[in-house]
Amino acid sequence: MTNTLILLRHGQSEWNQKNLFTGWVDVRLTEQGRGEAVRAGEQLAAAGLQPDVLHTSLLSRAIQTANLALDSADRLWIPVTRSWRLNERHYGALQGLDKAETLAKYGEEQFMEWRRSFDTPPPALDDASEWSQANDPRYDGIDGERPQTECLKDVIDRLVPYWEQSILPDLNSGKTVLVTAHGNSLRALVKHLDGISDADIAGVNIPTGMPLVYQINADGTPAAPGEYLDPEAAATAAAAVAAQGKH
Amino acid sequence: MTNTLILLRHGQSEWNQKNLFTGWVDVRLTEQGRGEAVRAGEQLAAAGLQPDVLHTSLLSRAIQTANLALDSADRLWIPVTRSWRLNERHYGALQGLDKAETLAKYGEEQFMEWRRSFDTPPPALDDASEWSQANDPRYDGIDGERPQTECLKDVIDRLVPYWEQSILPDLNSGKTVLVTAHGNSLRALVKHLDGISDADIAGVNIPTGMPLVYQINADGTPAAPGEYLDPEAAATAAAAVAAQGKH
Repeated sequence: MTNTLILLRHGQSEWNQKNLFTGWVDVRLTEQGRGEAVRAGEQLAAAGLQPDVLHTSLLSRAIQTANLALDSADRLWIPVTRSWRLNERHYGALQGLDKAETLAKYGEEQFMEWRRSFDTPPPALDDASEWSQANDPRYDGIDGERPQTECLKDVIDRLVPYWEQSILPDLNSGKTVLVTAHGNSLRALVKHLDGISDADIAGVNIPTGMPLVYQINADGTPAAPGEYLDPEAAATAAAAVAAQGKH
Repeated sequence: MTNTLILLRHGQSEWNQKNLFTGWVDVRLTEQGRGEAVRAGEQLAAAGLQPDVLHTSLLSRAIQTANLALDSADRLWIPVTRSWRLNERHYGALQGLDKAETLAKYGEEQFMEWRRSFDTPPPALDDASEWSQANDPRYDGIDGERPQTECLKDVIDRLVPYWEQSILPDLNSGKTVLVTAHGNSLRALVKHLDGISDADIAGVNIPTGMPLVYQINADGTPAAPGEYLDPEAAATAAAAVAAQGKH
């Protein structure tokens, strides 16, 4: 007996388009990103996947994606829970920087370490920065835990408790669960679910707007690796994510 | 010490535009309705009203309105609770009928009794009707309470417990509460709040897409009658609602 988990990375954001490090900066979807979200909902409906409950991060691009996808899937009315624990990885002092310029300035080794190192975070973002969330009321309740930078390991550490305490109980009550989140928070969850090594996760990329579906056992393990509803399109898009900054 | 309650009727729906009785039929917003929702959010932001929590019905047009208004108010991330108790009045066998044709066929007296009578519901809608929600999964949990027709008194009877048990506790925890709902579910709430008589409520109309703001005391009573953020536009629009079917 398994239950269905659907992971969905938000569609293209304004800063995906501009090739900037985004992290916790609250940018919106582009028109392309909105279209991706609408199509993701259509794909869910076409596949007969009907989410019973939604979990989102606190970032607008993930919430917009969920709202558009659930509208096109005709499931706007399902209950929703939001948590900062599903937020994108906090990119520290890189937030707001151009990826290509950062690559040129610091070189590929440092750049890839910041992007893909499992346990080395970028320098911390000063609370006085215009890209800090120090004064954002959505994080009022978590002030002691609000990060100023994160590596992927940090994301796993704050995400797995949410998986265990909020998402898995919904699955185990027989619900189909949709999680709309971010490239790195979903990498963290996929690493946890699929038991990917600290080294190998560097090569895993999650494309925007493509539903990734798992059948989850009662103990939280997946019955098999996750599958994209459209595997060919997902492979092409994931390769494009891997190449970011290199053009 | 009072807390802020904001009531918002969804923007124009496809069936508002076609002048059909809608009730629980799950139609979407028109482009005009989407624009109204966006502007409602802009009005909230301009007035410095920042909702901390959202309550919606289970109907897509109210949820779309909330999603669009919160996006333009930059408050997409607030927690949301949905309930069928905020749904539009169930219009029984009138659901799907043209308002002007119904007026012509049955005459003004019967028409106005169905529209505005406090305690006389229209004939019940058969569960076999294409406009019934008998097989709609969003109501699976309330099957024993799912109505087949309602008068305004019925709406009050199912809405007031939700007001007392879900909305008022949020207000009393110091939160600014946004409720996005429907012409008649909001009339029911306004009647309850303002102590409007069974007779006088017939003359009260709630325009689409216009925030109506109350300051609520701890005991659930309003400190004063509700005020629209744009009283002149609201008065004009309410007069148009009152004239529906008569053109």
